[in-house]
Amino acid sequence: MNYHFKNILAIIPKHGKYEVRKTNVYVTDDIISGIDTPPENFKADRVFEGENKLLSTGLINAHNHAYMSVFRNSADDVIFEEWLFKKILPKEDMLDDEDIYWGTQLSCLEMLKSGTTTFLDMHITKNVVPRAVTDAGMRAVISKGIVGEGRAEYGMKRLSDAKEEMENFRDDPLLTFMFGPHAIYTCDGEYLKIVSEEAKKMGLPIHIHLDESPVEHKEALEKYGKTPTEYLESLGVFENKTICAHCVQLTDSDIDIFAKYNVNVGANPVSNLKLANGIAPIKKMLDKNVNVAIGTDGPGSNNGQNMFREMNFNALIHKGVNHDPVAVSASDTYKCATVNGAKALDVANCGELKIGNKADLFVMDIHQPQFYPRTDLLAALCYSARGTEIETVLVDGKILIDKGEPTTLDTEKIYYYTAKTAEKIHGKN
Amino acid sequence: MNYHFKNILAIIPKHGKYEVRKTNVYVTDDIISGIDTPPENFKADRVFEGENKLLSTGLINAHNHAYMSVFRNSADDVIFEEWLFKKILPKEDMLDDEDIYWGTQLSCLEMLKSGTTTFLDMHITKNVVPRAVTDAGMRAVISKGIVGEGRAEYGMKRLSDAKEEMENFRDDPLLTFMFGPHAIYTCDGEYLKIVSEEAKKMGLPIHIHLDESPVEHKEALEKYGKTPTEYLESLGVFENKTICAHCVQLTDSDIDIFAKYNVNVGANPVSNLKLANGIAPIKKMLDKNVNVAIGTDGPGSNNGQNMFREMNFNALIHKGVNHDPVAVSASDTYKCATVNGAKALDVANCGELKIGNKADLFVMDIHQPQFYPRTDLLAALCYSARGTEIETVLVDGKILIDKGEPTTLDTEKIYYYTAKTAEKIHGKN
Repeated sequence: MNYHFKNILAIIPKHGKYEVRKTNVYVTDDIISGIDTPPENFKADRVFEGENKLLSTGLINAHNHAYMSVFRNSADDVIFEEWLFKKILPKEDMLDDEDIYWGTQLSCLEMLKSGTTTFLDMHITKNVVPRAVTDAGMRAVISKGIVGEGRAEYGMKRLSDAKEEMENFRDDPLLTFMFGPHAIYTCDGEYLKIVSEEAKKMGLPIHIHLDESPVEHKEALEKYGKTPTEYLESLGVFENKTICAHCVQLTDSDIDIFAKYNVNVGANPVSNLKLANGIAPIKKMLDKNVNVAIGTDGPGSNNGQNMFREMNFNALIHKGVNHDPVAVSASDTYKCATVNGAKALDVANCGELKIGNKADLFVMDIHQPQFYPRTDLLAALCYSARGTEIETVLVDGKILIDKGEPTTLDTEKIYYYTAKTAEKIHGKN
Repeated sequence: MNYHFKNILAIIPKHGKYEVRKTNVYVTDDIISGIDTPPENFKADRVFEGENKLLSTGLINAHNHAYMSVFRNSADDVIFEEWLFKKILPKEDMLDDEDIYWGTQLSCLEMLKSGTTTFLDMHITKNVVPRAVTDAGMRAVISKGIVGEGRAEYGMKRLSDAKEEMENFRDDPLLTFMFGPHAIYTCDGEYLKIVSEEAKKMGLPIHIHLDESPVEHKEALEKYGKTPTEYLESLGVFENKTICAHCVQLTDSDIDIFAKYNVNVGANPVSNLKLANGIAPIKKMLDKNVNVAIGTDGPGSNNGQNMFREMNFNALIHKGVNHDPVAVSASDTYKCATVNGAKALDVANCGELKIGNKADLFVMDIHQPQFYPRTDLLAALCYSARGTEIETVLVDGKILIDKGEPTTLDTEKIYYYTAKTAEKIHGKN
């Protein structure tokens, strides 16, 4: 289908920055085919009137566990050990494929409704998450989370499960895959090397949690005499394209290692505050040209899947803790949530509103008090928008949110089944 | 008018905490007249069906400069001196009464639409803000911001202007007043004593900015050999009921002074991050039973008027910076945004959903992905809600937001006039 976004304010990249200007944008099938002027012989199947609307490339959520929406608000304001060992792990064991399917769809619904078109996921159950995402029509990069010790059977089984999942969905045009060794405290060095070799062989990236908590950092120093980053470097993991989630405790020399190997960061500002892990040194990373993307993390440690909230925190907290009012600007933050995400997730032709890129787009209604008076609309996206003002979302040229409502997802079914899961694992509310 | 909120999930105080339960709530004229059971001979003029709705007492914004909405997103990502001396002060001088009226109404619109029913304001122009607020129908506590040196004429004129404004609006049942000496760096000691004496004579509280920036703290130590808090104590200001905005740099012994004199805090988490001033020691204040309320500050240093954002930051940042996942819980935060605000602002019978209290209420649509599955709805308010899900808002028993739309405010007029102001002060966008 062909779409024409008519006389609309659009966020367009220009010389490494952005300009917001009123223009016309044209979509032909899955591609942005024209900006300002239509491609030859263009005939729109539908025209979107642009008055009081803002058009942007879709947001990219760079670290998630989408199925965990069923834990939302079930484990807040408790200490970490209670969170993990009482509230999350035993209940995670109670989840069946059906629970995980609907939990993932709930996250897809919240992501789409708030302008996210692509996400990187780490999950626990073979085939279910890719199926839920494919049914939603979203673009995603999937990692089956794997853990192991050396060549012990359970770890090798998980690795082969991950490969089997990749094989099962290899023909889906919107899905790609990464290997997902969970973390250095759940995978031993030998296992990390095995996974790393396998990734190299298949030409796939690595997606891993890194240096999330002060405890992880301290234990790595004690056990290996190395920071978690130095340890991964020593194992050769960074010879693969890698995205590390969290990276809260990174030292200055760790950041140099990231820069040296072009390691990507999937930062999670809200989750890191919520679980009391701290604030990642994003300003330093950006200063050293490390590619920083941002994500929500799972809804069990965030309580939302709304990237506008991550953008808002990302643009504010580094100013406060660095006593630097120009640290991590709105423009930097928008990059973290879009083009840097595309780079980190290795999704081609995404992350910017430009001709030839994939038609992953959102339209926001800016006829709301939080957008008046209209001054700097890129700043407004980071500092004033709530993410609930989204009206239309396209992924790969298909309309997935139309007038605020999903076209591929069954809202009532999702609410019904996730409520059933919650009752099963948390008891009747 | 009498209203019945039927079979609705309501947040009800219980033994210093809250329970969220499905019940019926009755409003007779301006008062909550029944919970669970109606008052005698109750006849509803309108019934609000409660399915998939959440009812709460209205939020209280404990520090604001509402007229500054015309600066929204006009001065982001710049250093403080540029913000104040290039972007704010010269442009503030360009504002006339009309600009301030519509700017204030824009803030009232954003506040009401996001569930705020009462706010504490500090403004610059006699009579205009109270008029804009009265026309909106909101509850507010107004301080004309005043500055002065000793008995110098300009300061005394401002003081008499403030008193004149109080006199002009003394019969408005929804407005009360505080004296608003701006800060210790804009008022000298003698002037602060004069204002303090006047407040004592009239039985009115003091509303002042305190210890916002590291510079203010350092200069007070250099000039007076005292912290800003010790300095105000030495002047006798705290013998009045007082609310201090910001309080970012408070020392432990400053907090003890606050506890000793029952000084109230109007904390501004987002503004303090944005202007790079830091993070107020809210956890320590709450531990010492200091009454902490929260507010947005003006939209020039926040870019929004949405208290859900302040709640979200308040419930998250103290966990992160204190490495304490139970610091400042959802329940603590909801108190900061409601009952603590009522106490700090000295507005009687507000801040809790209980019989006999004022009917200042909001209804939120929770049939949205961010509220599923439904587990802990108080946590959901602080960690998942966006503030844009509000459908109905009552102030003093009057419906000011009905099905998401204002009943007293003219949205299009507000957008039109604030855009005109923006064009005048910022140039054509």
